[in-house]
Amino acid sequence: RALRKDNTGYDLKQLFIGAEGTLGLVTGAVLKLVPRPEDRAVAFAGFTEPANAVRLLNRAQSASGGLVTSFELIPRIGIELDEKNIPGCRDPLTAPFPWYALVELAAGRGAGLRGVLEALLAEALDDGVIADAAIVENETQAEDFWRLRHSLSASMKPEGGCIKHDVSVPVEKVPAFLAAADAAVTAAFPGARIVAFGHLGDGNIHYDVCRPLDAETEAFLARWEEMQRIVHDIVAGFDGSISAEHGLGRMKRDEITRYKSQVELDMMRAVKAAFDPQGLMNPGKVL
Amino acid sequence: RALRKDNTGYDLKQLFIGAEGTLGLVTGAVLKLVPRPEDRAVAFAGFTEPANAVRLLNRAQSASGGLVTSFELIPRIGIELDEKNIPGCRDPLTAPFPWYALVELAAGRGAGLRGVLEALLAEALDDGVIADAAIVENETQAEDFWRLRHSLSASMKPEGGCIKHDVSVPVEKVPAFLAAADAAVTAAFPGARIVAFGHLGDGNIHYDVCRPLDAETEAFLARWEEMQRIVHDIVAGFDGSISAEHGLGRMKRDEITRYKSQVELDMMRAVKAAFDPQGLMNPGKVL
Repeated sequence: RALRKDNTGYDLKQLFIGAEGTLGLVTGAVLKLVPRPEDRAVAFAGFTEPANAVRLLNRAQSASGGLVTSFELIPRIGIELDEKNIPGCRDPLTAPFPWYALVELAAGRGAGLRGVLEALLAEALDDGVIADAAIVENETQAEDFWRLRHSLSASMKPEGGCIKHDVSVPVEKVPAFLAAADAAVTAAFPGARIVAFGHLGDGNIHYDVCRPLDAETEAFLARWEEMQRIVHDIVAGFDGSISAEHGLGRMKRDEITRYKSQVELDMMRAVKAAFDPQGLMNPGKVL
Repeated sequence: RALRKDNTGYDLKQLFIGAEGTLGLVTGAVLKLVPRPEDRAVAFAGFTEPANAVRLLNRAQSASGGLVTSFELIPRIGIELDEKNIPGCRDPLTAPFPWYALVELAAGRGAGLRGVLEALLAEALDDGVIADAAIVENETQAEDFWRLRHSLSASMKPEGGCIKHDVSVPVEKVPAFLAAADAAVTAAFPGARIVAFGHLGDGNIHYDVCRPLDAETEAFLARWEEMQRIVHDIVAGFDGSISAEHGLGRMKRDEITRYKSQVELDMMRAVKAAFDPQGLMNPGKVL
């Protein structure tokens, strides 16, 4: 419906969003268009630890009045794999740092965001929240910076097997989650190369683990469930989600029964039974 | 949950929002706080017709980059009732106009919104979209302007009986809806005083009708259902909602069965039966 407000009973549209086709088919939708942002500022910053990235995120939201549109956390190994495997990728900073963030501010109209970002980074450099930073000068440079982020999945491909997780935790718990997960994964998989990156502003981390350099791909991937159990249990300990944006599908249909309460699972099954009693809609997925 | 992203099955939270307690009780919630806006600009503009108010709304969204936080439509009679019945209410413009809008822009940080609003109103005055306008100079004046809007319900009270509707239509259809509803209501209730006001940016109109000055309150209110049927049928003709923000409750529980499709009603009842088979939750409301 094209209504911005409609308070006449249950919001069935919201129930269909994220149902992965298990309740029915969407045959039409109304889109709300917004003007393309006219002001954009992009920077790449280096950090000694993820907690500082959270600090910069909070400062950026305050200083810009909530205009942070991207805040992508990237680990050092991600930049190294980019430079190794993807033509045209180059670290914009002169020295290496354990963590990076790609920060983007955007506004619908001219809002002096470059100045906001410059002041923010200067202050963060002064008090040690960031170790170094670069601001883009033009669209080409913005594309170069973004290529580092967008290439991360492709840059892992040639590394011979990665076990991937799409998880989220409350934003302020991301650093503690990363520390706990890294310790547990490294203990169980010595030498595993952890490429934890993603949308820090959403608390959404793509926690990908590539095989140790001395491990066989097949033997490593055979331990997928063991790895997943380790990571997902830690996510659950931080009140997180084992599928932040990619859904459950077939792959996590059984896995989710370990983490959702029985009451919530029962409610989901009751909705499914009410709408699709014969189980015709995308069978075998979600639940 | 304190997660910004969680894609693990049906979004039961969304199902509870707007269910008016018919599916269960909410016993806890996580709130996301945002900084108080630091920049705010408020104006009061007069129009010859509602279509011009929609034009100004669209221009305001473009010029501000989507920073319109309020766009409240008010008819002339609303200002007259305010001035008559509410101490301290005064029309900020020197001449009367058929329609008004209270416009507010707000941003998290300094964004020069007063300048944006001034330029917007100057242009709209030049090309006849607005007939006159006043911009507030300080917080006291902003409160004065807002009092005109917030007093509307109270200003109708002494008028001896109003039949109220809380409806929405797609924003661009508001002028056509008002024209159609006014014609139908006036034909059935000659002399009825229509006070149609509300959140134009949401397409949400509080379409209130006060008794004709020569009618008895009791006789007028006795025709509530007839009036409601006229207004709601016209709303339905514009693909609107008969309850934009106030819910169905007990009052519109039967009324909604006239406007929602049988399929949607069946789906709502199936959800209700699945979650609350014994009908213990807020019985008699919504469905």
